[in-house]
Amino acid sequence: MNDQHLDKLEIAIVLYDGFTALDAIGPYEVLSRMPGAHVTFIAATPGPLRTDNGMLELVAERSLEQLEQPDIILVPGGPGDVVARAGEPVLEWLRQADRTSTWTTSVCTGSLILAAAGLLDGRRATSHWLAMSELRQLGAEPVSERVVFDGKLVTAAGVSAGIDMALTFVARLAGDTLAQAIQLGIEYDPQPPFDAGSPHKAPAQVVELVRAASPRVQEEVAR
Amino acid sequence: MNDQHLDKLEIAIVLYDGFTALDAIGPYEVLSRMPGAHVTFIAATPGPLRTDNGMLELVAERSLEQLEQPDIILVPGGPGDVVARAGEPVLEWLRQADRTSTWTTSVCTGSLILAAAGLLDGRRATSHWLAMSELRQLGAEPVSERVVFDGKLVTAAGVSAGIDMALTFVARLAGDTLAQAIQLGIEYDPQPPFDAGSPHKAPAQVVELVRAASPRVQEEVAR
Repeated sequence: MNDQHLDKLEIAIVLYDGFTALDAIGPYEVLSRMPGAHVTFIAATPGPLRTDNGMLELVAERSLEQLEQPDIILVPGGPGDVVARAGEPVLEWLRQADRTSTWTTSVCTGSLILAAAGLLDGRRATSHWLAMSELRQLGAEPVSERVVFDGKLVTAAGVSAGIDMALTFVARLAGDTLAQAIQLGIEYDPQPPFDAGSPHKAPAQVVELVRAASPRVQEEVAR
Repeated sequence: MNDQHLDKLEIAIVLYDGFTALDAIGPYEVLSRMPGAHVTFIAATPGPLRTDNGMLELVAERSLEQLEQPDIILVPGGPGDVVARAGEPVLEWLRQADRTSTWTTSVCTGSLILAAAGLLDGRRATSHWLAMSELRQLGAEPVSERVVFDGKLVTAAGVSAGIDMALTFVARLAGDTLAQAIQLGIEYDPQPPFDAGSPHKAPAQVVELVRAASPRVQEEVAR
């Protein structure tokens, strides 16, 4: 994609009941700040969709059919039965829309949905660290990196990784200066009070705590 | 607040038309994962509220009056006329709710709303880096730090800083282990492609670009 496309860049974020809000909102906050970009939230049935914990609804303004050829497709993740929740209409739409997209992307376990649609067969991809074995079972080659590009298929690690992925997109589409301007605009100068954001940095007891509380398959990909 | 309160911790996030989505969703994603915590999105008029760029609606499930004594109050920011958009009913509710809250907090220019309500008079507080002079005009003492505690008034810097603030709250309320577990759960191991998230790190031309594009008062607080 060249700069010309920036006159109008259609970004579709696919919602479904049980999605994780930050998976969607992190990239939205970055991508929506690109001049010429428009983010549309879509769903099999437009209207309010409830997040994973039941505490919030976001509104999908359009149906899948109403946005057939977005430039960027983004699928957020969600807990547990993420693929089943997304539903077959979403999988079918993804297969069609991927034919014309510039990038087909996911955050967190959104990659399980892309994989279930057959879009990650044999491709390098990532997901939430607890979902790597599921990702493999669905045909992808799991990679423990924060953002993984395999051609036009781009996947980000758990929840917050979508912010980093989106900044990478801006840099590639519109250059480093705009990406840095957007980073400065959202004051993304992360200062987490702990260095515990990956299973390789968090204390072992914390990793076990999170693993034990997860409904996911209890196997992490070797690195 | 001691551990006892974690049996039920009411967190109110105040929405209004023109708010910035990540300001609200960053802290929501962290705080909602605390066992016993419940996040409620409230607004002067419940229902869908549109974000700053017009591309998304989040649903406020309850009115201000329906949640009178939350333990934590969080006010997101928004562009430009943020205080006017929030409206007097929000300011009045904040004055009342602050009397019984454990923490009254903001992200980004949400601190201008707290200040307009009179809650930051003479207090150390922060905001988006472009809003520091406005914050001073509204009676606060601006501080260029990512998260600023002044008694029960807690303010975070621009947009993404709410994630760091929320992790700090979890650590104080429920201990470092849970905060680390939540950080690991959202895989918050930030790897931005640039180091441009503060005006002191971004290239000068990027700072000027963002400053020139901002509707805000063009004066940054001295550090």
